Parts: sequence; structure tokens; C-alpha cells
Amino acid sequence: MSDLTILGKAAKQASRQLAILNSNHKNAALLAIAAELEAQTAVILAANAQDIADGRAKGLSESLLDRLLLNEQRLAGLAADARQVATLPDPVGSALDSRTLPNGLQLTRRRIPLGVVGVIYEARPNVTIDIATLCLKTGNAAILRGGSETLRSNIALVNVIQAALERTGLPSTAVQLIASPDRALVAEFMRLDKYVDVLIPRGGHSLHKLCREQATIPVITGGIGICHVFVDESADFEMALNIIENSKVQRPSVCNALDTVLVHERIAADFLPHLARRMAANKVELRPAGQAWELLRHNGHGAILQEAGPDDFDTEWMALILGIKTVTGVQEAVTHIQDHSLDHSDSIVTNDWRNANTFVDGVNSSAVFVNASTRFNDGGQFGLGAEVAVSTQKLHARGPMGLEELTTYKWVALGNGQTRP
Amino acid sequence: MSDLTILGKAAKQASRQLAILNSNHKNAALLAIAAELEAQTAVILAANAQDIADGRAKGLSESLLDRLLLNEQRLAGLAADARQVATLPDPVGSALDSRTLPNGLQLTRRRIPLGVVGVIYEARPNVTIDIATLCLKTGNAAILRGGSETLRSNIALVNVIQAALERTGLPSTAVQLIASPDRALVAEFMRLDKYVDVLIPRGGHSLHKLCREQATIPVITGGIGICHVFVDESADFEMALNIIENSKVQRPSVCNALDTVLVHERIAADFLPHLARRMAANKVELRPAGQAWELLRHNGHGAILQEAGPDDFDTEWMALILGIKTVTGVQEAVTHIQDHSLDHSDSIVTNDWRNANTFVDGVNSSAVFVNASTRFNDGGQFGLGAEVAVSTQKLHARGPMGLEELTTYKWVALGNGQTRP
Repeated sequence: MSDLTILGKAAKQASRQLAILNSNHKNAALLAIAAELEAQTAVILAANAQDIADGRAKGLSESLLDRLLLNEQRLAGLAADARQVATLPDPVGSALDSRTLPNGLQLTRRRIPLGVVGVIYEARPNVTIDIATLCLKTGNAAILRGGSETLRSNIALVNVIQAALERTGLPSTAVQLIASPDRALVAEFMRLDKYVDVLIPRGGHSLHKLCREQATIPVITGGIGICHVFVDESADFEMALNIIENSKVQRPSVCNALDTVLVHERIAADFLPHLARRMAANKVELRPAGQAWELLRHNGHGAILQEAGPDDFDTEWMALILGIKTVTGVQEAVTHIQDHSLDHSDSIVTNDWRNANTFVDGVNSSAVFVNASTRFNDGGQFGLGAEVAVSTQKLHARGPMGLEELTTYKWVALGNGQTRP
Repeated sequence: MSDLTILGKAAKQASRQLAILNSNHKNAALLAIAAELEAQTAVILAANAQDIADGRAKGLSESLLDRLLLNEQRLAGLAADARQVATLPDPVGSALDSRTLPNGLQLTRRRIPLGVVGVIYEARPNVTIDIATLCLKTGNAAILRGGSETLRSNIALVNVIQAALERTGLPSTAVQLIASPDRALVAEFMRLDKYVDVLIPRGGHSLHKLCREQATIPVITGGIGICHVFVDESADFEMALNIIENSKVQRPSVCNALDTVLVHERIAADFLPHLARRMAANKVELRPAGQAWELLRHNGHGAILQEAGPDDFDTEWMALILGIKTVTGVQEAVTHIQDHSLDHSDSIVTNDWRNANTFVDGVNSSAVFVNASTRFNDGGQFGLGAEVAVSTQKLHARGPMGLEELTTYKWVALGNGQTRP
């Protein structure tokens, strides 16, 4: 039996215990994790300091090193997050709906945990605590595979979690780490369908592709987006500029950040100079195409300009770059989004009732906005209290995944001897 | 561009039109399909007669030939089913829930179609009409791959559907058939993730395995079950016998039929003779293990007996065969089911409140029954009005999948200029 099979089997076993725990017991484990994080601060920071030193020696960028870094303040934040998850309502055990059949059978769809959740994620140690606490809260066992750059930090954090689990009478195998940088283990992990019920890859395009190609476990993908704002003919210019600025600039490296602005051709000549000036003030480089390029190429109003290339409207920028294109109206905007979006977040700025409805009906991204920033597509912003990922697939969950999305349901049918005629 | 890519692209295009149709329009198409099925009866039956003749020449069994067979009565039944689907409520467009965020953003989760649904199914021509009508009702485009034994029948049926679609102003590419018996196309179909949003394999274990291994499209598997009835110490014997008989005998070849009876060891000596006699009367062969074998081996009470082999409790019988095992109580019954069930349908017969709850809490199959037959795990029986498949996986849908399970949702956020602080 391979090491991963042993891990998987133990997780499945633990998931059966977790599934029938009451909320008080699960919350006690979460509070114990918070306390243990504080008690073991020195141990965790020492492990993290080694990761950081190795990363610096390997020449990792300062921004990446900052993402790897833990300090007393960040660790205190993680403990606070664990305590906050304990305060959230537990979705497990609630009834989605119920009915009594004509033969008297009482039928209820009852929420239950997914079982064993596998997560593959980038090099951010805080994700280890996030995923572990959200899975525990919903009665799921978790198998984690974090980035190799934070292996020592993750080992220290999972030790803390497992100590807290044991102290509250739960199996330490409820949260396990694949504690090896061996990449071959990722491929094996993806095929552990006998023990793992769902796989959540949190990473870039190539990890998603690998999961689609290789995984035998059902996968929830997300976290990648080509996001659009369409500025309709009737748009309030100031509102449009604010929404574009916020969507593009507030945090350009995330998946709900803006990539392409579509502008109604009838207002393009008026609007684009305003847009160029606002973007110039924010150091955003513009990539206009067609008519937009013609309107800006001789006067960029201070903005850095480059004519849009053939792949630019299929690029998630993750940077201060913005594609611009004019369209003949809402219908062409919808079609452009259908053809280029990755189903993440798209917004229309308009004052026209009919166009707003056409946009909302035609764009089937995980979140569709009217007169609001794409940056709102987020579990915290949407009031879910927590977020395990932002899904852009069609099955199971779309958009921000909170606690409910870490559950499934079973049909419970209570009878008194019913048989089928 | 391959033929399948052309098919996929056309389906995706059609799905965008279907997604914004109102219910009246979709229902008109369903009624047109019903009318066209009746008008084209002779054409369809002629095609089916050729399939049947070929099948007979190939030496297919009479029971399989009966599953392939269409006649006037069965065709009338299909037309009636299409009309019935038209009467069902359309889930698309309804709000799952809604809230207004503190910043005034009005947030709704709105039901939308999945998009393009791919279905691979066994040689039953009625499935072609079932899937097509349920997908149309929910605004999904469908790509169908039926069994090669009914290829001519399926071509005739899809011609009928496409004629009806065109007559009601819908794209005929809303329902397409992979009209070739070439098996290589199945592998290509499974990897059409660019165009197909979900793949539903309706078939046996090997098709499911192939999908898990090969598909790059998210898959909903189901339709396979190892189903249990646990007869608790406090069970009413007559109720237990009726439930076992109904679960095992009423239709032994389906996935919610009973495979294994677990009997509390304290009542085994009393109960097993009754069970053996009842099964003998129904020509059910018994496969008892351990104590059950010892209790029955010298007197089978008229039943055919064979000691259970090592794989018998992991076998879906699909026949009049029943595994029997004694257990020390509800906890061992739950553990046996957790280890051997395929998450389909399991039932306890008991009069003990605590044991009923232990069973319902511990068994996380798609449907869990107390004092009722496993045969109820079915869309029609559960009152869903229609059924596209019975899912046994954890993601998206579990148990009978009706119209709602052919939908997903998007977040719609209506604002007046909100940006993220």
C-alpha cells in the first residue's frame, strides 16, 4: 500500500467520525486550533523563517516571499479566523426541503458533508488553516498539498492542527498533509478516487488543465477569470470610470480583477479620453483594438498604449493592463463575453432597463453585475462568512464557495412498511 | 475541425439561444415533438424493425431485444411523456435565494441551464426522447450517444425531434446524435470539455470507469448500486419480509434492487427460516455467509443456497440472488454498508428509535430508508415528475435527478455604482 493510499484510507475513516459530530464538538476543535496556533507561535515562525531563507536563496521574488511570510501579526490573524469560523452556522444536518408522499413516506433532503476533500494549492501557508478549519466545520476530512516553498511552515501548521484535534478527542487524520515536495505524488493524489470525494485545485491554468486531464476524482475548478465591464450608451461616465478603476486597480493580481472594457461605439469618442486619463493616473497600460485604437492612437491622454494583439482578449492580465474594444451594442457585448469569458465576473454599466436585462440574461458567468465592480465576486463580500474557493464550473457550486458548498445531501425516507406497487 | 468539434460548437451555440427562451416556447417545442412522434410512427417503427432484425441476427437475447423494441403503444407512451414534461414547472429563472448587502447591492442566485449536456447511454431508444425532452425543458442543448444496437431507431427519433424544433423556431442543433457506431468517438466525446458542460454516462461499471479515467468533462455518475436492508432486532418480521421481497423481487435488474440482507444476530435463528421460505417462493437464490450459512445450510426451507464467496458482498446481482449476513447490531450494519455500499439505496427495518437514527446518521448513501423498500429511490416515486439519472456521486446532485438537477445558478448583483472599499 502506497503512503498516499494509507493517507486516503485514514482520511475516509476519519470522515465517518466527523460526519456525525455535533457542532459544539467541531467548534471546540476550531477553538483549540486557534489556541494552539498562539501557543506554538515560536515553533511555527521558526519553520517559516527557514522556508523564507530557502526561498530567498532560491531567488524567489519579494512579492512571492511576502506571500509565504508568517509573522506574529499574521498568525494572530489566522487564530482569529479560526475562531470566526467557529461562530458561523453549521450547515450539516439541516433539511434542504421535505415532502410527504401520497403513500405516507416522509421524505427529506438532509445536508451532509462531502466526505474527504483534497486541496492542491499555491505557496500560501494561510490557506492551510483556512481549508482545514472550513472542512472541519462542515464535517469533512481534508488532505492538503501545499506549495513546496512552504513545506516546513505547512508541516508545523498541520502539527498544530493535529495536536488540537487530538486534544478535543477527534482523529488527527481529519487533517493530513502530503508532506513531500515530490511532484509525482500530485499525479497519484489526483487518482485517489477510492478515498477522496472532491478535489479542489487552487492555482493557475496549468494545474487546472492537469486536473481535467489526469484526475479521476470529481474536481471543482475556479480562481481564473477574464472579466469584462461593458459601458453601455446610457452609462453614467463617472460611475463607469469608478467601476472600471475599482475593478482594475484595487487588486490587479486576483481572479475577479478586470481584464477587458467593452464600450458602446456611439459613446466611444466621448468616453475613451476620460477612460485613458483615469487609467493613466493609475499607471494602467491600455490595449485598445479596432475603433478604440483609432480613437486613442494619436492621443493617449497620458496612458501607455499598445494596439491589442490577437490573444489579448483571451488573456487574464493579473497586472495593470487593460484591453479595450468598442461594440455595436449590448448584444455584441454579450457575444464577446460568451466567446472570451471564463465564466468568472462580468459587469454592465447602464441606465437602460432593457439592456441591463439583456446583459443579465445573456451572460452566464458565475457572477453578473449591473452597475457594480467585478471585485465583489468574493465569499466575504457576498456575506458567506468564509470562502474555500471561487468556482467557475457549472456543476455543484458557482462563484464563491462557502460552508454550504462543502456539503452535499442525502434523501432520508421514513416509512412504516411502504413497498412499491 | 473534427465532426465532433462541429457538433460541439453547434450545441454550444444552440445552448445560448435555449438559455433565454421562455417556458411557453420550450413547451411548444415539447408538444411539437409529441405530435411529430405520432405523425412519424411508421418511419420510426420501420427503422426500429431493422434494428431488431439486425439484433436478432446478431443473437441478442430476447430480454435485450425487448428493451430495444418500439411499437405503437410504446411510441404513444413516449409522446405522452413528452406532453407530461411540458406540464412540469420550469425551474430556469427562479431565484434560489436573495439578499441585499449592507452597501445596497441586491444579490440573487438565479437558476440557469447547465449549457450543453452530453449523455452516453445503453441501447434503449426511449432514453433518447427522455433526455431530449428533459434537456429542452431546462434550456440545455443535448448531445446523445446511444447504443449501437439502436442506431437506426435513434437516427429516426432525433430526426423527429429536429423537425419539431425547426417547426417551433428553435435550432435543430439543440438536440444532436452522434450517429456513428465508431467506438473511438466515445473517447473523443468525453474530452470535448470546450463545448460540453456535463457528461452523464448511463451504463455499467466499465463505462463509469472509462469516464473517470478519460473524461475531461465533469461527469455525473450513477445508476449502479449495492443495496442493503438491515433487519434490526426489533423489526416486525412481516414488514421486513415484505420490504425485502419488494426490494429484491419487484424488478431485480435495476440499480435500486436489493443485493444484501443484514440480520441482527439475536433474531437470525428465528428470522432466517421465514426469509428463506419467502425467497424460495420467489425463486430467489440465497448466498448466506458465516452464522447465516450455519443456520441455513442444513435446512434451506426450499430456497436454493450457496455459501457466500469473498466477493459476493461487493456484487450488484441484477438477478434473483441475495447475499445474507448476520451482524452484531446497527453499528456493524452501518460499518458493513459504509465498506460495501456504492452509495445508492439502503434501508433499515426496525422499531427502535435510537437504532433508526444511528442508521440514518451513519449511512450516507444517496437515499436512506427506514421501514421502506429501496425501490423508492426513483424520480417518479419521489415526486420529481421526471428523472434523467440516479446520481451516486457527491458533487452537484444525489439520488434521482429531475429538472432542477439539470440546472446550475449564477449570482446576479444589481447595484447603483458600488465599488469595493
